[in-house]
Amino acid sequence: MKKTFIFIGLLSIACASLHAQNKTDIPVYLDDKQPLEVRVQDALKRMTLEEKTRPSYAQGKFSSPGCPRLGIPELWMSDGPHGVRAEINWNDWGYAGWTSDSCTAFPALTCLAASWNPDLAAKYGKAIGEEARYREKDVLLGPGVNIYRTPLNGRNFEYLGEDPYLASEMCVPYIQEVQKNGVAACVKHYALNNQELWRGHIDVQVSDRALYEIYLPAFKAAVQRGGVWSIMGAYNKVRGMHATHHKLLNNDILKGEWGFDGCVITDWGAAHDTYEAAMYGLDIEMGSYTNGLTSESEFGYDDYYLGKNYLKMVKEGKIPMEVVNDKAARVLRLIFRTAMNRQKPFGSMTNEAHEQAAYQVATEGIVLLKNEAAKKQPALLPVAPDQYKQILVVGDNATRNLMLGGGSSELKVKKFISPLDGLKKYFGNRIVYAQGYAAGRPMYGREEKISQAKVDSLRNDAVEKAAKADLVIFIGGLNKNHFQDCEGGDRLSYELPFGQNELIEGLLKVNKNLVAVIVSGNAVEMPWVKEVPTIVQSWYLGSVGGDALADVLTGKVNPSGKLPFSYPVKLKDCPAHFYGEMSYPGDSIKQEYKEDILVGYRWYDTKKIKPLFPFGYGLSYTTYKYSKPVLSAKQMNEGETLSVSVKVKNTGTVAGKETVQLYIGDEKCSLLRPQKELKGFQKVSLQPGEEKEITFTIKPEDLQFFDDRKHEWIAEPGKFKAYISSSSADTQNIVEFEYK
Amino acid sequence: MKKTFIFIGLLSIACASLHAQNKTDIPVYLDDKQPLEVRVQDALKRMTLEEKTRPSYAQGKFSSPGCPRLGIPELWMSDGPHGVRAEINWNDWGYAGWTSDSCTAFPALTCLAASWNPDLAAKYGKAIGEEARYREKDVLLGPGVNIYRTPLNGRNFEYLGEDPYLASEMCVPYIQEVQKNGVAACVKHYALNNQELWRGHIDVQVSDRALYEIYLPAFKAAVQRGGVWSIMGAYNKVRGMHATHHKLLNNDILKGEWGFDGCVITDWGAAHDTYEAAMYGLDIEMGSYTNGLTSESEFGYDDYYLGKNYLKMVKEGKIPMEVVNDKAARVLRLIFRTAMNRQKPFGSMTNEAHEQAAYQVATEGIVLLKNEAAKKQPALLPVAPDQYKQILVVGDNATRNLMLGGGSSELKVKKFISPLDGLKKYFGNRIVYAQGYAAGRPMYGREEKISQAKVDSLRNDAVEKAAKADLVIFIGGLNKNHFQDCEGGDRLSYELPFGQNELIEGLLKVNKNLVAVIVSGNAVEMPWVKEVPTIVQSWYLGSVGGDALADVLTGKVNPSGKLPFSYPVKLKDCPAHFYGEMSYPGDSIKQEYKEDILVGYRWYDTKKIKPLFPFGYGLSYTTYKYSKPVLSAKQMNEGETLSVSVKVKNTGTVAGKETVQLYIGDEKCSLLRPQKELKGFQKVSLQPGEEKEITFTIKPEDLQFFDDRKHEWIAEPGKFKAYISSSSADTQNIVEFEYK
Repeated sequence: MKKTFIFIGLLSIACASLHAQNKTDIPVYLDDKQPLEVRVQDALKRMTLEEKTRPSYAQGKFSSPGCPRLGIPELWMSDGPHGVRAEINWNDWGYAGWTSDSCTAFPALTCLAASWNPDLAAKYGKAIGEEARYREKDVLLGPGVNIYRTPLNGRNFEYLGEDPYLASEMCVPYIQEVQKNGVAACVKHYALNNQELWRGHIDVQVSDRALYEIYLPAFKAAVQRGGVWSIMGAYNKVRGMHATHHKLLNNDILKGEWGFDGCVITDWGAAHDTYEAAMYGLDIEMGSYTNGLTSESEFGYDDYYLGKNYLKMVKEGKIPMEVVNDKAARVLRLIFRTAMNRQKPFGSMTNEAHEQAAYQVATEGIVLLKNEAAKKQPALLPVAPDQYKQILVVGDNATRNLMLGGGSSELKVKKFISPLDGLKKYFGNRIVYAQGYAAGRPMYGREEKISQAKVDSLRNDAVEKAAKADLVIFIGGLNKNHFQDCEGGDRLSYELPFGQNELIEGLLKVNKNLVAVIVSGNAVEMPWVKEVPTIVQSWYLGSVGGDALADVLTGKVNPSGKLPFSYPVKLKDCPAHFYGEMSYPGDSIKQEYKEDILVGYRWYDTKKIKPLFPFGYGLSYTTYKYSKPVLSAKQMNEGETLSVSVKVKNTGTVAGKETVQLYIGDEKCSLLRPQKELKGFQKVSLQPGEEKEITFTIKPEDLQFFDDRKHEWIAEPGKFKAYISSSSADTQNIVEFEYK
Repeated sequence: MKKTFIFIGLLSIACASLHAQNKTDIPVYLDDKQPLEVRVQDALKRMTLEEKTRPSYAQGKFSSPGCPRLGIPELWMSDGPHGVRAEINWNDWGYAGWTSDSCTAFPALTCLAASWNPDLAAKYGKAIGEEARYREKDVLLGPGVNIYRTPLNGRNFEYLGEDPYLASEMCVPYIQEVQKNGVAACVKHYALNNQELWRGHIDVQVSDRALYEIYLPAFKAAVQRGGVWSIMGAYNKVRGMHATHHKLLNNDILKGEWGFDGCVITDWGAAHDTYEAAMYGLDIEMGSYTNGLTSESEFGYDDYYLGKNYLKMVKEGKIPMEVVNDKAARVLRLIFRTAMNRQKPFGSMTNEAHEQAAYQVATEGIVLLKNEAAKKQPALLPVAPDQYKQILVVGDNATRNLMLGGGSSELKVKKFISPLDGLKKYFGNRIVYAQGYAAGRPMYGREEKISQAKVDSLRNDAVEKAAKADLVIFIGGLNKNHFQDCEGGDRLSYELPFGQNELIEGLLKVNKNLVAVIVSGNAVEMPWVKEVPTIVQSWYLGSVGGDALADVLTGKVNPSGKLPFSYPVKLKDCPAHFYGEMSYPGDSIKQEYKEDILVGYRWYDTKKIKPLFPFGYGLSYTTYKYSKPVLSAKQMNEGETLSVSVKVKNTGTVAGKETVQLYIGDEKCSLLRPQKELKGFQKVSLQPGEEKEITFTIKPEDLQFFDDRKHEWIAEPGKFKAYISSSSADTQNIVEFEYK
């Protein structure tokens, strides 16, 4: 019970400085000069039991109360993590029709992860934090750091990929910069919300090792390094208990082992029991419904689990006052850090700097997957403005507003530049557009059906136009409809939807000069991968994504994104799917993460399954040459570090950025370990011919695994390998060292 | 052009301190340490023309924009002046359905004026300011200081009575205390909005003397002494031009003579011309409509007069940039003082202190008009709890929620104690209630019709019950329905509505023990004044008004309110009505204030017309004796002051508060002057037998009138009288002095 100790410590601080109060008229809890904990404890002393319990549940769709009598303000939250959502009605999910709430849409977090650039994560956090602040939000519901386990998960686009180290490195600066605005980040969804199917009740069985090594590190980094002020409990169950009020996750790990002093906020409607919510670490219950699980019942916020029933159980002595005080203190801490923070800046909206941040993330996140020169001609990309007489742009995603749909991350934007808009700036009238396929409107809970006649007609039109064009740029992929990249459901299959594979095959038959741009937040199956000479992985790129994409395709910007997750050739190759339905999606009641720690490249490496495209992979319009790495020593002793240096040279003709990756592999271990694990990366900018030296520091914890027999992180002495790689599958060099 | 000089001065300050900027990263306009004007000018320099013009018109029903790009926040306004209105939808007048917006309703401003207690005005302002601040409002639309000209004006309840001195003294502390919360008061409706009938277009003709002596002083006090940050332009016309963009009112007087540096905000929809709005001093245009004066037209905020057409006229050179810069600077000043004020407190809602403020204003505002002892028995009030076996409470206003209706001042309250609730706390089961009359629901734009059968049945029921009761407490008056005390229309006649006179006559026939409590914001005709032994003027008393009324009726609180306006016996006696329809209400196009400066008691005194109840009048449960006043000198020279002292003694058996009034009369003047004018008042609290001495200081300006021949305030040498009075009609003593 570490919490208790912290508490007693704080109380003594509180008592010691109460004398200061008498000198001024201002009560201690309102005195900015007093330490946070002193103010919190002073406020607590003044609050009635009812006032202490009331802040623990919602008063509106995105608001929870403070203490009006004492002038402690309410909290306002907003969906993130890609932009500040438009205002919602107080008590239903309709939009409130404001005209001052159009935001900058930043690229989806998969794109940020693909940039492998923590500086951009900081810029992203700063910009979105400023927009949240300007909109008077206290809590921004993001970032999402759930690990990419299966390409079917409808919500992967909101997350940072399959690797806990990459996700950690990218979420920390985002959180820090958001919070500099006096806006709490709310890292989500804690924990193991790795699929949307049955998310409200599926009961995840996972080993301690997978939990600690794979699924929790990004949350831990958010708490301990990011200093995040709030965390969102997930909908799903874990080992029989709902994650949002969970003894192991909240009490033991988050607030115990990690020392988190902030708020656990439910996902909307994720709480299911008053006693568990009270006792197992939930601090604020938010919800999706007030009126009626059945239409007959009157169901209001007071009926929430942390509502009147919580108060009643406290009065009956079933829930100790220590719990009430702890919960209230946590909410107060959150309010003092945000709504009552006088020093916070004022933020700003939709300005040049925010657009630039969105643009930079987009350009650095786009991944060039393939760009093959054919016999008679060079690679199709980059395309010079006057290279072709007629360019066919084909595909629904060339024009679709992909900020709409997707669930809670839906955004109303001030500016929207589609890929077609972006390309027209370069190619003007040389462009012909064909929709190619129809994808229906964004709908929640169902798909819009498109008739086969329409599908055929759109495809035929596109193929006809392709036959006449000199270059075809296909811009398709998934979208934000239900059963695509959208909250509340998973994809129904790994393949591209809406007949896009047939369309691509059709286009190829009449024109080999085909660039395929896949816009998605997930890997997709590519049966045409060998035939299509050039493939680009775009993401949901935000407000100015069209400019970013056009600038990459034309070479104004040299692509430098690398995949934040592995693309399996087929679904069965994917670790979550390898072990059958009990592993994914479960039997609707339970599921078991049978792949255990072998998630993503850990699986493909260890099991020697070749992915379609590996983790960390991405091409450039230039080439890089790695020197032989140099280790500072051949041996690493306990408590020491090693450094490994490598020179990287741009051997091509254009400037570019290369992300150099450091993986560590344990040659022999008493438990199964993956072949190698990402432990460092650096993105370097290189002019043609330029060479730079990069140095990584290897720390003892980079060698550790979570030993579930002892419940601790240990590194076993022995031989280790340091892989210097340009992707998880493209190791440039390996150096070995001994750990003693 | 005083404005120009101020401007140049500010610019030089701005330039001088730009050096400081370079030392830190923070731009000058965001640097709290810089002077306001330096910050405003710095922001202006950074803004584009579009950004400078955009803040001058609404973006929603109660919001106007700042500069999102630069992080200058938008403004949020709320209807006042009696409480912070519930949240309204962004773009229609429906309530937004929040559950955190229930406020404390304070008594109507007529009640505050009737308290004659500036300390209570300060408490009122502090409390309502704290609620506005807690609700994150930047501008509170109040107080109203239009002079009470006719008892038919539907909006008198929102104002501070008929006397410019009383209104000034009461509005200044209200404004100062509101603004200490970083919330701008918005004094309204500037100017001459003295009736609701045809308010949108009636063209008021008024003399300079009446303007300067009667209708403007409270606005001037609000600006110069209250330091108010915003002012609301009225709907009506004045001398052929709409008041809200008016050269004389805004440019010459408000911003010229008075040096106002804040914002003129329209009443909602009060602007009518782009050029006039731009050139004649309007700074922010708010509105009631966006969609369609006709249902065919699409009409949005950009179509407002200060919208795109303003920008166009600026670009065409028809409106000079100096005007644009001045307007933008004024809005910025308002934003910096409110939304961007880091030092403002956090406010609070519906707490004990606010309830106490509301309660105290209510108890001190209630006016005891008549309390006659009959032959065999003492006066009916106060009523002891066990004095009567059965008490009939009769009247719709005993139970009606009078916070509903009335127009923009409508409030959603957290707590509502009706008079019946309040009385039941004392009399419990001894109380029988009868509605007595039906008044319909609050409806806007029309009256709900009540059938004669219902009227008869309710009256008969009440009379039957009255026959059996030992005491009858009638609680009627007006209400907040249309054509009563309600914005957007005037009363249709001076008499009590809903058959209340017949009801009172009926009650009197069966029970002489009748206390009549009139709840209203206006004087009403009282044909039964001689027969009803006890009459109490209540007002719209707010959240806890029922407690206040009960405490006064039972003597827990000794009434001390005094009328803030005169009650004419009949409408024709009233100065606004004396000269016929062109004086009130006008011919729908124009009207002429023919009574000129003789408004209120100035009229009744000067014309020797006996009012039903005079200005400044109010009884107590105790009696006071005034000593002979003592003047510090018999002569007053230019630039000097005189003091006049008087002792007041509580000669009764209970503690009480007496408001001692000082009026000054000019014996002879080259222009018509009223017999006397209020120039001072003091409210003293006296225990039984206690005597206190009060001293007034008479200043030269107390002797002045506005000489419209010279356009200046002057005092002519000669004899003056100082009246020491307990009401305008009850002069205790007169002392004379000579002004040289």
